[in-house]
Amino acid sequence: MSEGKLILLPNLLDEEGVAEAWLPAAVAASVRSLQGVIVESEKTARRYLRKFLSHEEMARLPLRLLNEHSKSADLEALLEPLLRGECWGLLSDAGLPCIADPGADLVWAAQNRSIQVEAGVGPCSLLLALQLSGLPSQRFAFHGYLPRESALLEKKVEELELFSNKENSTQVCIEAPYRSQKLLDCLIQRLRPTTRLCVAASLTTVREQVVSKQVGAWRSQSVVLGKEPAVFLFFSP
Amino acid sequence: MSEGKLILLPNLLDEEGVAEAWLPAAVAASVRSLQGVIVESEKTARRYLRKFLSHEEMARLPLRLLNEHSKSADLEALLEPLLRGECWGLLSDAGLPCIADPGADLVWAAQNRSIQVEAGVGPCSLLLALQLSGLPSQRFAFHGYLPRESALLEKKVEELELFSNKENSTQVCIEAPYRSQKLLDCLIQRLRPTTRLCVAASLTTVREQVVSKQVGAWRSQSVVLGKEPAVFLFFSP
Repeated sequence: MSEGKLILLPNLLDEEGVAEAWLPAAVAASVRSLQGVIVESEKTARRYLRKFLSHEEMARLPLRLLNEHSKSADLEALLEPLLRGECWGLLSDAGLPCIADPGADLVWAAQNRSIQVEAGVGPCSLLLALQLSGLPSQRFAFHGYLPRESALLEKKVEELELFSNKENSTQVCIEAPYRSQKLLDCLIQRLRPTTRLCVAASLTTVREQVVSKQVGAWRSQSVVLGKEPAVFLFFSP
Repeated sequence: MSEGKLILLPNLLDEEGVAEAWLPAAVAASVRSLQGVIVESEKTARRYLRKFLSHEEMARLPLRLLNEHSKSADLEALLEPLLRGECWGLLSDAGLPCIADPGADLVWAAQNRSIQVEAGVGPCSLLLALQLSGLPSQRFAFHGYLPRESALLEKKVEELELFSNKENSTQVCIEAPYRSQKLLDCLIQRLRPTTRLCVAASLTTVREQVVSKQVGAWRSQSVVLGKEPAVFLFFSP
């Protein structure tokens, strides 16, 4: 086994977040042990790393990009220092690497080259939303983004509701902040009145808003979502 | 809105675990703010609470049970002090409440009575396994326990592999420690050689073992799982 190591660093969900509230103390020591960091974007990564490192330490720490523009061939170059025995971090702009975020291909390549991979604990909006929703979690499915086009979206929502009912499984999806209201309106309109629907927005911030009730109750009292990141969950009993 | 609050406390995955490594410092303050704790089992809960409380504080803290033997009617009694404005915790024997663990019904009842619900951050075996597997996480589905009977299990595994391929979704399941080896053998035997299969066992402990490779490679070199808790993940490209 190579001595190199890849550490999946947990980020906060929001830049306002306080590290002590949401990250174990061990994260600071992990960051200080790194010889480089693979980041989703440089600017956001620097703000995070400054919580744990001095300016001098920051200046010495090489950063490399891995994001939606990266190609498979880039993975080999990123792993090269780890194959030489170095310890690198992987950091998303928010939340956990590899959870609805870049990184899985890099971890797969690392696992298949016997590079040690470690993951730190931090806030994950999907998981917090699932806990706070009160919807069943013995079975659940995360679908990422649903289709944007209205007719396709409506069809997908109805499919997922049938699936939820048949499989006894909570359905979870996300949407870009500026499209959240449209998705919420569609869910309220298309799901059955007895289906349980939760919206969890701006988690871990002072603007956090979690509303969880039956679709029938949503129809009589909805909420206005700002342009905030939100997780949508529903369960058809 | 009621002034009462329900705090979903993160537990460690293993009693050997060190709180500083896996829990934010804020968890200690949360625990100290509680007027009671709803627990999955008393003995395990006391071991956790002792990390944060003195013997005197422990002795004053009421514990109430919520587990697989609880009935719907019990929820009302559990929420009663929160409706009077008290702040209570909810604690699983390991990992996070409400994630493949009891608690969702209580949170649903709390959300529908406008009791404030907060969730703390801690280790979650499903999420750590998904990150460490290197399998795609833009879509994933958690199925809990698969059927025990061999023919039903084989049928289910084949169904889930088709679903993974069609939906581009990583499939995640768990098994009781003493049945882990049987499930692993079945997965290696029934899945296609090109399907990616990961087993993540004893996460966050010194016995942690994560193996992630194609089923073809598993067939030429498998592993022996001890009687350890494990998460199983597969993805059919």
